[in-house]
Amino acid sequence: MTTATLQEAPSRDEAELLALIDAWEEALRAKDIDRLLTNYAPNVVTYDVKPPYQLQGVAALRSMWQTCMPCFPQEFAIEKRDFHLAVSGEVAFAHYLFRFTGPEKDHPAMQTWMRVSIGYQRIGGQWQIVHEHVSVPFDPMTGQAVFTLDP
Amino acid sequence: MTTATLQEAPSRDEAELLALIDAWEEALRAKDIDRLLTNYAPNVVTYDVKPPYQLQGVAALRSMWQTCMPCFPQEFAIEKRDFHLAVSGEVAFAHYLFRFTGPEKDHPAMQTWMRVSIGYQRIGGQWQIVHEHVSVPFDPMTGQAVFTLDP
Repeated sequence: MTTATLQEAPSRDEAELLALIDAWEEALRAKDIDRLLTNYAPNVVTYDVKPPYQLQGVAALRSMWQTCMPCFPQEFAIEKRDFHLAVSGEVAFAHYLFRFTGPEKDHPAMQTWMRVSIGYQRIGGQWQIVHEHVSVPFDPMTGQAVFTLDP
Repeated sequence: MTTATLQEAPSRDEAELLALIDAWEEALRAKDIDRLLTNYAPNVVTYDVKPPYQLQGVAALRSMWQTCMPCFPQEFAIEKRDFHLAVSGEVAFAHYLFRFTGPEKDHPAMQTWMRVSIGYQRIGGQWQIVHEHVSVPFDPMTGQAVFTLDP
């Protein structure tokens, strides 16, 4: 992971937030939706790559993952780049680019770089995801989504 | 503005951040790029609706706006919904949906709802935008961007 905005020794909050991102990735790779949703605030607002424009609440997010999870490759890893994390008091946010990699190189899910921005709040002593925004840009001339990074 | 997460009396930080969002909108409506860029951190990272995947730094953002500004309608307002703002210490983030409205109802820029997530840090006593992510979702069956909210 490129931790561009982190010092060599992360603070306790930074370490907790990095662990939360790692746990999310492990849960996704294990296709364990209960575990994936562990660290979301009940009233989280998510903007996803695909419609609808937003999802409100963990129940809507669970339903989305139940639909999406079967479309994921059997085995994959997550590659990140340009990772940034900012934290102060009870609020933090992170942003980075990521993609799925693995042996099924022609799998549709393997063709896409994505941008993610995440908002966190510490609620009852625990960091929770209160906002998540994942997207790819689109070419305004064609209206089509662009999956590959510029050269 | 729907300030769903704000109490009736915003804190000083909340008021400063709301003023910053208002100032951004006024600058955009005035097509004043210098003013628009006033509150961005020099090393801001932006994910825009269209390629490239990310822009790094205010110079890249200025160049983008110089290209885009002529494509905007002559006169427009900004409609927002589902506004949320979280702030603690030196870090804050906001997210909401927005669109441009105005008399040129057939203008391409008037057809699109967008999602925005913004990361702020207080640097040298001043709140600055250190991250901005604007997107529309795309239909995975067609690969095409979706501009209108679901019913």
